[in-house]
Amino acid sequence: MNTYGTRFRVTTYGESHGLAVGAIIDGCPSGMHIDFDAINCELVRRKGVGVETSARQEADRVEFLSGLKDGITLGTPIAFSIHNVDAHSDDYAKLEHCFRPGHADYTYYNKYGIRDHRGGGRASARETVARVVAGTIAKQLLSPIIICAEVDELGDGQTRGGIIKCRIEGVQAGIGEPVFGKLNASLAAAMMSIPSAIGFEMGAGFAAAKMSGEEYIDRWHEDGTTVTNHCGGVQGGISNGMPIEFRVAFHPVVTLPEPVDCLTEDGRLETVDVGGRHDRCHVLRTPVIVESMAALCLINYIL
Amino acid sequence: MNTYGTRFRVTTYGESHGLAVGAIIDGCPSGMHIDFDAINCELVRRKGVGVETSARQEADRVEFLSGLKDGITLGTPIAFSIHNVDAHSDDYAKLEHCFRPGHADYTYYNKYGIRDHRGGGRASARETVARVVAGTIAKQLLSPIIICAEVDELGDGQTRGGIIKCRIEGVQAGIGEPVFGKLNASLAAAMMSIPSAIGFEMGAGFAAAKMSGEEYIDRWHEDGTTVTNHCGGVQGGISNGMPIEFRVAFHPVVTLPEPVDCLTEDGRLETVDVGGRHDRCHVLRTPVIVESMAALCLINYIL
Amino acid sequence: MNTYGTRFRVTTYGESHGLAVGAIIDGCPSGMHIDFDAINCELVRRKGVGVETSARQEADRVEFLSGLKDGITLGTPIAFSIHNVDAHSDDYAKLEHCFRPGHADYTYYNKYGIRDHRGGGRASARETVARVVAGTIAKQLLSPIIICAEVDELGDGQTRGGIIKCRIEGVQAGIGEPVFGKLNASLAAAMMSIPSAIGFEMGAGFAAAKMSGEEYIDRWHEDGTTVTNHCGGVQGGISNGMPIEFRVAFHPVVTLPEPVDCLTEDGRLETVDVGGRHDRCHVLRTPVIVESMAALCLINYIL
Amino acid sequence: MNTYGTRFRVTTYGESHGLAVGAIIDGCPSGMHIDFDAINCELVRRKGVGVETSARQEADRVEFLSGLKDGITLGTPIAFSIHNVDAHSDDYAKLEHCFRPGHADYTYYNKYGIRDHRGGGRASARETVARVVAGTIAKQLLSPIIICAEVDELGDGQTRGGIIKCRIEGVQAGIGEPVFGKLNASLAAAMMSIPSAIGFEMGAGFAAAKMSGEEYIDRWHEDGTTVTNHCGGVQGGISNGMPIEFRVAFHPVVTLPEPVDCLTEDGRLETVDVGGRHDRCHVLRTPVIVESMAALCLINYIL
Repeated sequence: MNTYGTRFRVTTYGESHGLAVGAIIDGCPSGMHIDFDAINCELVRRKGVGVETSARQEADRVEFLSGLKDGITLGTPIAFSIHNVDAHSDDYAKLEHCFRPGHADYTYYNKYGIRDHRGGGRASARETVARVVAGTIAKQLLSPIIICAEVDELGDGQTRGGIIKCRIEGVQAGIGEPVFGKLNASLAAAMMSIPSAIGFEMGAGFAAAKMSGEEYIDRWHEDGTTVTNHCGGVQGGISNGMPIEFRVAFHPVVTLPEPVDCLTEDGRLETVDVGGRHDRCHVLRTPVIVESMAALCLINYIL
Repeated sequence: MNTYGTRFRVTTYGESHGLAVGAIIDGCPSGMHIDFDAINCELVRRKGVGVETSARQEADRVEFLSGLKDGITLGTPIAFSIHNVDAHSDDYAKLEHCFRPGHADYTYYNKYGIRDHRGGGRASARETVARVVAGTIAKQLLSPIIICAEVDELGDGQTRGGIIKCRIEGVQAGIGEPVFGKLNASLAAAMMSIPSAIGFEMGAGFAAAKMSGEEYIDRWHEDGTTVTNHCGGVQGGISNGMPIEFRVAFHPVVTLPEPVDCLTEDGRLETVDVGGRHDRCHVLRTPVIVESMAALCLINYIL
Repeated sequence: MNTYGTRFRVTTYGESHGLAVGAIIDGCPSGMHIDFDAINCELVRRKGVGVETSARQEADRVEFLSGLKDGITLGTPIAFSIHNVDAHSDDYAKLEHCFRPGHADYTYYNKYGIRDHRGGGRASARETVARVVAGTIAKQLLSPIIICAEVDELGDGQTRGGIIKCRIEGVQAGIGEPVFGKLNASLAAAMMSIPSAIGFEMGAGFAAAKMSGEEYIDRWHEDGTTVTNHCGGVQGGISNGMPIEFRVAFHPVVTLPEPVDCLTEDGRLETVDVGGRHDRCHVLRTPVIVESMAALCLINYIL
Repeated sequence: MNTYGTRFRVTTYGESHGLAVGAIIDGCPSGMHIDFDAINCELVRRKGVGVETSARQEADRVEFLSGLKDGITLGTPIAFSIHNVDAHSDDYAKLEHCFRPGHADYTYYNKYGIRDHRGGGRASARETVARVVAGTIAKQLLSPIIICAEVDELGDGQTRGGIIKCRIEGVQAGIGEPVFGKLNASLAAAMMSIPSAIGFEMGAGFAAAKMSGEEYIDRWHEDGTTVTNHCGGVQGGISNGMPIEFRVAFHPVVTLPEPVDCLTEDGRLETVDVGGRHDRCHVLRTPVIVESMAALCLINYIL
């Protein structure tokens, strides 16, 4: 369940405060020059630079362990790791036996009976760094298809959520699968797998539910394009050649800057100043993760 | 891609105007008494009874071909078929060489180079009858977990869409998977695979994107339940013991009651009175499909 | 686990004395004319005609329920069923509470706690009829690759086993996968999944274990073919362009013509004249099953 | 295709002369103390100590990167890597543009159009080190089931092959799957995926093909055990409670100690003294690999 994809398969690993995070990519075609600069560039986008992002600043040096010869893919598994160097695990000592509200502490504990409480362990957004590396390679394979995501709405308050809009251009008609393998269904799963994603909509989305059929219907031009794109470029699970458009809602950061009541393992509430270093607004860092997951989704339909 | 699930695997088949629709269920535990009355009852819910549903009225008699002995499951594949008897294929003759707007005619044609134009073929909602049969068996396995969906909002106009709300009660904490196998991500894919689904949200959903962290965060009671349930019962991809709540948006029916411009295979627009027999408002029939897909999703985590 | 394949997926169902056996094929390309005569012809080969084959003579009329329009594949799931008409279930009444030696009665009972004792239920070779239908379609897709299996050795005695040799011609070099997806490993699994298969070898097989490296090694001609074909056409899991050659050993029929001691559910031995109608030598009917499984294996690498 | 398993999934990576080999294990239950000594011990068995094994002597220090806390599994992916330190890549310079006979050089080149010629690249038996690490963890999970493999026959000559016999004790009746998921079929695939495996047989195997039914049939004791175990402990794909027994044939080492004719990329034969450091008889090192793959196979049925 830590594997994404059927043809271009990415298996990720790593806890936030463990030795490393990384992944194995299996199914990448041979003979492709990896653009390492693009990977580093996207990792910088993910890290964010603004005042509202975490003070934890990882160097994020990617070490490729296999699958390449002189920077060219061999067709064999591409393993990479990124060592965690700027983790302050001591900040988390007070959380060893209690569960923060809004986090996955309690659910992991119930599932596994054990957890790495430091920095959110496997549930940390630190895990998305591997998605960005793999997603950037997928983007390169998808060229000249363009995937572009940006912040569409930002929430208010002391920690914030928001909505990311993503647009994919250049996908020809006929890409997708019917019934359970619908392209829009896979995009939904890909997006909802991003930490703190809480909603997904194609094209007109929730607003479409209030439209009449007459308003909603995307009418033809003679060249097979449509006047509107309310469906978001996918019909019956298969692309229609229009841009693929969707939005993803993210709930606000659930680590508050003030002390909160945590639940202890023995069922008491305990006020804890959670500390650690956290974003005020992760949504600013999220577009590149949305793009990466979109690329990982799409490449499995196109390879 | 016509298979859903990893442990309780449902593979469906059938075109709207072909001989039959049906499925094979592989992975159903042995020794279970199938409740045939419950299946028939849910099929009636799916068919709908109101003035706004299709005049096509299938008997929907389910024939079980394997996997049962005296109504008890053997643990081997359960195959079933439902013959199509009330199909009026002649209504569709005028659509053999042109594509309706808003439908999957054009995308199927681009993908496959051939399609069954009668009644939407494989893209028809007729396909969901197999999901309801399999989903009802899954519901029975999930008991005493309760899955209940209902219409939450209805659109206006001559054909209508709407929003279905679904609530799952009785799922203990600890059900789900991290990272790519998140329960909420799988629910999103399951829901977006339903014909005409266009949006999905967990708990507070899109509204959460505008909340501050302080408003959004689900605070603890001492018993591990929470004061609010903005997250919809899933954190880090794993259930937290609260009810699982989500909403699914459906766009309006795209077969309009008036003539529309269709695109011909040779790139002209042609006004066609599409005819056929269609719902004005499929959303009224959809709750049982939402429940069925929720059950098929959940059973794969719980078996 | 009743599904075979990743791209051309065949999910079979049916008990020997149930209503029907059949399958769904998912992933068959669109636009292919199905050769129904070829299917019927291979079903006759499977049924056998000699004195040593079962007196049960099924008509084996295949009914296609979906996925075709005018005999041409739509790219959607192809479901088919074959009704069981010549089953004499009463012959098996005496086996309802006891387990025959050499059969899967005991193991199914231990796994499922319930079984269909009539005619071997799901473990019956009756199940292979669906493999032959699907395999014949796969063969047609593989053309001009030729798959040919025949009896290589026949055992002695009152019921007999034997060895089938299979040769696949026309597979170009470069087909297969490394490590766990090796073509020879998949062929082994495909063959060992046939009822009563008990051994598998590529090329020189077990004899190769006794050769020296000098004897064994397949030396080059300048055109990339080799002087010998001890490896059976596959190296490192990938085809080398030589014919793919393997042999499959089958143990003798385990239904003896004389009474045998069966084990009762309550742990006693009971002499039973098992009766039913059985082959003396199933190996004569098996080549077409070997070919079918080889085709189903290969098509997943080539599609 | 570099992933093995459905519940306990092992994805391996690494070329023989790349930076590292290793794997990610996904699906290992939480709360298990990893026995690192057992892992090191099995790695020594794999390395071999005799005069006939390769002069390449890797330290094989396993570095665990994730999934553990204080040596206890978290239930999250366990990533490990083993750096390649004793690779003499220069030995292989003369093989950059030609293909050795008997190796996977030619087939990889045909599949990928590129290959890492140094030390066999991904096709090298070096890859099996990751299988042994993962397999040893699986063995620990399977306890008290015992898996024991040993050399049964050794070939003659200057480089040698042989036959490994493996016996698994303690598997209860009822483990396995019918039809395509048969335990014996999965064991066959697991074994045939080991480099240089060329044959597989359960129980009496190829000899069974010559037996009569009377000789072959495994007759009951009253306690459900059988007098003989010709079937090798599996019937209808499901264990019957007897020891699971099988044999695997390995062809001789295909790197000969004398110069051989290699095929150049431009279609000429060229005599090359292949050099490198190689086993004379890999079969002596192989039992632990057979055991590891047996464990990886079995754990997926039992978890």
